[in-house]
Amino acid sequence: MRPKRRKKKLSEVEGRVKRLQKRLAAGGLAGLVVLHRPNVRYLTGFTGEGWLLVRARGQPRIITDPRYGMQAQEEAPQCALDVVSKGYLMGAAHRLSRTRSGPVGFEGDYISYTDHKRLQQNSKGCRLKAARRLVEELRWIKSEHEIQRIRAAVAVADQVYEDLAPRLRPGQTERDVAWEIEGMMRELGAEKAAFPTIVASGPRSALPHAIPTDRKFGRRDQVKLDFGAVVNGYHSDMTRMVFLGKPTKRQREVYGLCYEAQQAALEAARAGITAAELDAVARDVFRRAGCADAFGHGLGHGVGLEVHEAPALSARSQATLEPGMVVTIEPGLYFEGWGGVRIEDLVVIREDAAEVLTQASKVEL
Amino acid sequence: MRPKRRKKKLSEVEGRVKRLQKRLAAGGLAGLVVLHRPNVRYLTGFTGEGWLLVRARGQPRIITDPRYGMQAQEEAPQCALDVVSKGYLMGAAHRLSRTRSGPVGFEGDYISYTDHKRLQQNSKGCRLKAARRLVEELRWIKSEHEIQRIRAAVAVADQVYEDLAPRLRPGQTERDVAWEIEGMMRELGAEKAAFPTIVASGPRSALPHAIPTDRKFGRRDQVKLDFGAVVNGYHSDMTRMVFLGKPTKRQREVYGLCYEAQQAALEAARAGITAAELDAVARDVFRRAGCADAFGHGLGHGVGLEVHEAPALSARSQATLEPGMVVTIEPGLYFEGWGGVRIEDLVVIREDAAEVLTQASKVEL
Repeated sequence: MRPKRRKKKLSEVEGRVKRLQKRLAAGGLAGLVVLHRPNVRYLTGFTGEGWLLVRARGQPRIITDPRYGMQAQEEAPQCALDVVSKGYLMGAAHRLSRTRSGPVGFEGDYISYTDHKRLQQNSKGCRLKAARRLVEELRWIKSEHEIQRIRAAVAVADQVYEDLAPRLRPGQTERDVAWEIEGMMRELGAEKAAFPTIVASGPRSALPHAIPTDRKFGRRDQVKLDFGAVVNGYHSDMTRMVFLGKPTKRQREVYGLCYEAQQAALEAARAGITAAELDAVARDVFRRAGCADAFGHGLGHGVGLEVHEAPALSARSQATLEPGMVVTIEPGLYFEGWGGVRIEDLVVIREDAAEVLTQASKVEL
Repeated sequence: MRPKRRKKKLSEVEGRVKRLQKRLAAGGLAGLVVLHRPNVRYLTGFTGEGWLLVRARGQPRIITDPRYGMQAQEEAPQCALDVVSKGYLMGAAHRLSRTRSGPVGFEGDYISYTDHKRLQQNSKGCRLKAARRLVEELRWIKSEHEIQRIRAAVAVADQVYEDLAPRLRPGQTERDVAWEIEGMMRELGAEKAAFPTIVASGPRSALPHAIPTDRKFGRRDQVKLDFGAVVNGYHSDMTRMVFLGKPTKRQREVYGLCYEAQQAALEAARAGITAAELDAVARDVFRRAGCADAFGHGLGHGVGLEVHEAPALSARSQATLEPGMVVTIEPGLYFEGWGGVRIEDLVVIREDAAEVLTQASKVEL
């Protein structure tokens, strides 16, 4: 089996490089300096640190340091390799200074102001040109193979939730539960947590991105669990609310609104709708209830080799949803002093609907 | 006790801001846009996401989004606060466009090429000027209070090592041991691991930054353990080798050389020596033995609010060691196909010597 799988992996990354090379040619670029690590991984399979030079034709070249040389050979045998000891930037500049065939793009979103200056100064004779999202816009449409990997990461988180949620009790601490979630994910095969697990209870649930503390759950607390797993480099991301006692009237109201907003967005999500329109679908539910101000973040974000990637689903987003995009749908309401709720599913955008990947049960009030 | 501790914390961050303001005045800057998260934390105590505007005089201003508004108020009550929903960059630009008093610095190492362009375009009337290491060079000299925090993080890792090392056995997997280490650190009070724990066994120990795999330890394997804890935001970092059987001749030779190089560097480390000189002390031991090529990384790096921070200890470093710097000393030798060794301690640079913080025992062959 092993040689077969290896072959398949090679052709997948090679196909991605070919698609990028088409974009380079279309944009009049002789090449692209790739710095963003998930982009390097996407194009090569190499998971260490380094830069990547992709020319409009031919074999991509990984520039790494001796710590990662062996790993690069192992993970990306299809690439040329420079193992340099004076920094990736100088290694790239050395190669670029021989390029006289046209402007070479660089990832303006990921190179620092300082490094851009240094790269320019040391790449004599090469015209550098800022390029944005060339790889990201390949990445945001997932292949079915990638969706399978995301499904595996989703399944881990789903199972953890179903095991854990019924066992939550007053007196447990946020920190202990967060740690338990991360341990369960590892036992189920996750490489690591997709991001630091959020367990926020009672009034602390009003912090959208709370860091777990030693606070003990109270008897009628709401507990916000936001976590995800990484499996084979791909992430999942989900949020569920657990009510430890019989929900109060306000808990029912706030959760009910959030549930309604999320359902509306899940139903509206499909290819062709813009990210801003989809954000508005959820936001309008809150607006009609007079609490749109309590929804202080966007509706969602892309998920893949990064837990936050393009496209953003927000009022300011320029994106239109396309088949194969994998995004979160996660409206929330936050009231300082009282608490907050959020419900988050991961979905695949299909032609006529969103396919909900997250299977974990949701509280129905 | 609580109000007292709070007061102390405030005055510490305020003192840091005052020292930065002196540097700004000396550099002819009317202010500094701080983006790097550990720098924001260092100057304010705020641990969420956001930017910080420090003017040459007066109260610093945190620019964050609604997810972190409450947290910023809680953690940094001494700061002014803008909670913005159109991005930190636009929030900063809004404030900067009112500045007519002189050039304002920005952290050129941390702002992307793209964001710098956008910040410039949206900060009409404000002259922006790249600034480097203004906060980092404050941070690299630690106060005794900070050293105490680092000691706490070191103590956690030390204890984990002493508990775990005698229990390592052939048949355990790298992944399981890495996870056990991280769990033990949490139980001992760490917020999290300082970086993904490295457990590399047998030939895999030749990868300086190996990701733990399901490889089972063999009977005569050497196991490289490289890990650290975060306590109160401060990091520790240590590497130890464990030999599961009676060490082979080659294991003894390679380990012995690495031990000798590390001892030489520990003994040479003190205020006044340059980072490049100290790197050479260890490298010369390997050079005399004819294996300097197998030491493919620098001797060490600063540790504090980041696990890798200034100063770098390498042949290319421009730094001179000063009292209060906290750095790793970690020579290593790596032989593809055979394996590698590294020994790493964390030390505080003092006037006449290095104070070794790491107390974990070392194999003596």
